[in-house]
Amino acid sequence: MMYPVKFEKLIECLKRLPGVGQKSAERYAMSMLEYSEEDINDFISALAGIKEIKHCKICGNLSDEDECDICKNKTRDHNTILVVQEPKDVIAIEKTNEYSGVYHVLNGAIATSKGIMPEDINIQGLMDRVNKDTNEVILATNPTVEGETTALYIAKLLEQKEIKTTRIAHGLPMGGHLDYADDLTLIKALEDRKKI
Amino acid sequence: MMYPVKFEKLIECLKRLPGVGQKSAERYAMSMLEYSEEDINDFISALAGIKEIKHCKICGNLSDEDECDICKNKTRDHNTILVVQEPKDVIAIEKTNEYSGVYHVLNGAIATSKGIMPEDINIQGLMDRVNKDTNEVILATNPTVEGETTALYIAKLLEQKEIKTTRIAHGLPMGGHLDYADDLTLIKALEDRKKI
Repeated sequence: MMYPVKFEKLIECLKRLPGVGQKSAERYAMSMLEYSEEDINDFISALAGIKEIKHCKICGNLSDEDECDICKNKTRDHNTILVVQEPKDVIAIEKTNEYSGVYHVLNGAIATSKGIMPEDINIQGLMDRVNKDTNEVILATNPTVEGETTALYIAKLLEQKEIKTTRIAHGLPMGGHLDYADDLTLIKALEDRKKI
Repeated sequence: MMYPVKFEKLIECLKRLPGVGQKSAERYAMSMLEYSEEDINDFISALAGIKEIKHCKICGNLSDEDECDICKNKTRDHNTILVVQEPKDVIAIEKTNEYSGVYHVLNGAIATSKGIMPEDINIQGLMDRVNKDTNEVILATNPTVEGETTALYIAKLLEQKEIKTTRIAHGLPMGGHLDYADDLTLIKALEDRKKI
């Protein structure tokens, strides 16, 4: 390539982001040339701050401190634990304002094909957390092969501990149309039908 | 939102990149959490280097120094100037290995609707450059409304200076299929047909 060395270096850094190829990286880098001194310093300090972002030692969620705000919040129901794959899933559930329990973030899902085994994700942390006071563990991993495998694996472990374990419902999304739904969703929606 | 403050800050910085929304920024930020100390320092020094990237004082292309490598290269034909909109266009032409003249990078195109006037792009630099020794100015701005406007504007200025001005050809792309070409391209391809 024929870009100046410093520009190439910026492109190389941007290409490390997921799904960003040469063209996008060039576009991003080009836009960054217009950045003010302040914009650049903002970005640099944000990058420098990455290593200070922690995982909550209780639930595994992203946190500024050792314990996250949700785990520290005494008004929440600490005996109901909702298990999700990623920190962004916590945000999705929090946005609904309908859940007042706590979370457990696995930071991944079992994917044997990719070499991600149960011990590579935060399952042990969950097992250490649950006890006789735990009312319910709600498994809200994604409805994908990996998410289902992980949910089943955790359910089996919790069964031994005799802890009530539930899985969030799967079916037609609200506002969706039947003819746009995929086969698997329709099958699941039929299987899990309930009396009204 | 409920992400840690430092993580939110990183997302905000990433959202300033063109075409990057909340979801992509979250995805990028999440992947950056896995960065090693070295990766982060690489990125920081790339960012710190942005302000040292210059525009060549002759052609306007991106450069590490005051003059770019192409303008400094004595073996190139400095009396043929190919005019492009962006530095990436220089790279596109250089990749063909078919052009041995020099470039002039406008760093934009005239777009009155967006308030980009002729004096906002590097046209004056081109006018200062051309002289009686200039053999040809090849206008290779994009075949868009803005690019065509810019080409016509520059052609008019150069006409007064009696300098040979050409426009790169437009027509069917090589390897393309007639039935996939859009109307404008087909019209242009017919108009500009030549005897074989």
